Amino acid sequence: AGVRGALVGGVDASSNVGISHALGIDPKGTHAHSMVQAFGALGAGEIGAFRAYAEIYPDDCLLLVDTVNTLESGIPNAITVFEELRAKGHRPVGIRLDSGDLAHLALQAALAMNWAGFTDTTIVLSNQLDEMVIWQILSQIRTEAPKLGLEPTDVVNRLVFGVGTALITSQGAPALDGVYKLTAVKDGTEWKPAIKISETPGKTINPGTKNIWRLYDKREKATCDVLAMEDERLDQAAEIHLHHPVDFQIQRTLHREDLSRIERLNIDLPQSGPASPLADTLDTMRSRREHDLACLDDGVKRLVNPHLYHISLTRSLWDLKQKLVRERCKGAGK
Amino acid sequence: AGVRGALVGGVDASSNVGISHALGIDPKGTHAHSMVQAFGALGAGEIGAFRAYAEIYPDDCLLLVDTVNTLESGIPNAITVFEELRAKGHRPVGIRLDSGDLAHLALQAALAMNWAGFTDTTIVLSNQLDEMVIWQILSQIRTEAPKLGLEPTDVVNRLVFGVGTALITSQGAPALDGVYKLTAVKDGTEWKPAIKISETPGKTINPGTKNIWRLYDKREKATCDVLAMEDERLDQAAEIHLHHPVDFQIQRTLHREDLSRIERLNIDLPQSGPASPLADTLDTMRSRREHDLACLDDGVKRLVNPHLYHISLTRSLWDLKQKLVRERCKGAGK
Repeated sequence: AGVRGALVGGVDASSNVGISHALGIDPKGTHAHSMVQAFGALGAGEIGAFRAYAEIYPDDCLLLVDTVNTLESGIPNAITVFEELRAKGHRPVGIRLDSGDLAHLALQAALAMNWAGFTDTTIVLSNQLDEMVIWQILSQIRTEAPKLGLEPTDVVNRLVFGVGTALITSQGAPALDGVYKLTAVKDGTEWKPAIKISETPGKTINPGTKNIWRLYDKREKATCDVLAMEDERLDQAAEIHLHHPVDFQIQRTLHREDLSRIERLNIDLPQSGPASPLADTLDTMRSRREHDLACLDDGVKRLVNPHLYHISLTRSLWDLKQKLVRERCKGAGK
Repeated sequence: AGVRGALVGGVDASSNVGISHALGIDPKGTHAHSMVQAFGALGAGEIGAFRAYAEIYPDDCLLLVDTVNTLESGIPNAITVFEELRAKGHRPVGIRLDSGDLAHLALQAALAMNWAGFTDTTIVLSNQLDEMVIWQILSQIRTEAPKLGLEPTDVVNRLVFGVGTALITSQGAPALDGVYKLTAVKDGTEWKPAIKISETPGKTINPGTKNIWRLYDKREKATCDVLAMEDERLDQAAEIHLHHPVDFQIQRTLHREDLSRIERLNIDLPQSGPASPLADTLDTMRSRREHDLACLDDGVKRLVNPHLYHISLTRSLWDLKQKLVRERCKGAGK
């Protein structure tokens, strides 16, 4: 599920052979450090490992250069093997850096490979990457490349980022503390709204059977999502009164003429069959994800200090919530 | 696997019905908030929900008292139902607090239940508990109980802690970043040690085929674990020279007469059958865990600012590591 989610989210490929096979895509990767170690332990050295790999994969030759010493051994040995491949009419793919100061090493690798005439070989970076580390690496390359006579964009365009742990685990939020809550009870044919009051206002539930809507402003950007009672048709309202879910002071009114589009987000899900979004292909899901992301303002997508995207309640829902809380508090102790 | 691990680690029971059934133990828990909400939405109130539950579980009656208002509604209603149960000859189990200032509410609950003659009913605490929150709750109860005329130990002995998210997820360490590394290669019949050098000294591997030993001091407390070459018999050595895995300055020598016991930790694991530790019962594993923990010094078990437990290398292993690093660095660039 993690690999599938990453592919929908925008990665190009996975190094997991089994899952890639199951999903019908080509896995991507390099040989392991242990291959270089094994050749080293048996006396053939790093260059022996690189040659053996190049012999088997002459047209897919991506070499991991940090087993011994990246600058003094890995990159020179890789270039030697690349020259041997080129002499036989093959086109080497590139190198992978998996430790150390990745931006610095990528620039040194680009310099060395350019000098040997390999001006478009790929430079794969890996080692505990996440979005912040990648941001830092790109920033460092943009600063340092010109000092070495390199065009930053040329270097950046050669980079491939191999992200592992931070993508396939929930490192920043290890537990999703979601709870199913009762919001309504069917009494005969009628749904009766239910409430649970919490000392933490954000945990007091939003009662009743509801829909959720997304409102788009005139720029076609999503401006907020709105929880509404099931019988409210926000797409037919001339104006929409919004309430913050817990802070009674925060309210605003949106007018239909300021909105480009109103979309109901919850859909009735058939259990199976081609009509179900669960049956969509990876490509379809990826396109939908790209479109949804494009509808978000850049401000809410910033890595640091982003704007908060608002989830609001309609006035009807807010009023029902107040009413139920008041009734329940009145009834307490009886 | 999480529930099984928690049971080995020392919890008394799980609220997960399916897994408890699979492991052959009784699950423990209360009714849900939604039961009280449903009775509320249909007009029967919290007391109606409590009575319905007590009717079905008269001898296992544990009531969740924080759906409406713990002090003004939940605890008084629970005591009413407990009195009704007592009148019919049943013994109520207790209450569960799932929100708010748990230590304060537990003390108030103990006062109210004592006053009604329920002096040994259980008080279950839950809501995002972890070891630090539990420590804080116990500390607060020890401070505040005497001011209310309660004996702290009496209150603490009534408590049950329901720990969920923090126990069943890896909240403090969401990713275990382990890597299989090649440490030796079999060349014919001989194992040749392999090395991988990292810019981070702690990541440079410990080469060769090895054993791991645990040394116990005269108090029968584990003093350190030691990685040794496979042919070293630490249990027969008169003295053992230990090296820090990466810091060359940290060394010490232990004499056999200062040690009570030397245990080889790695065992040859049969794939299956009754001799395999994988076939041990939960009780056996739990006893082993209790014994292992008892062998650790209190200092390394502190929640805050603990002593570090040492993992050392023998001098033979340290020397081999130095030798291989030196050879590999000499060979770099060739």
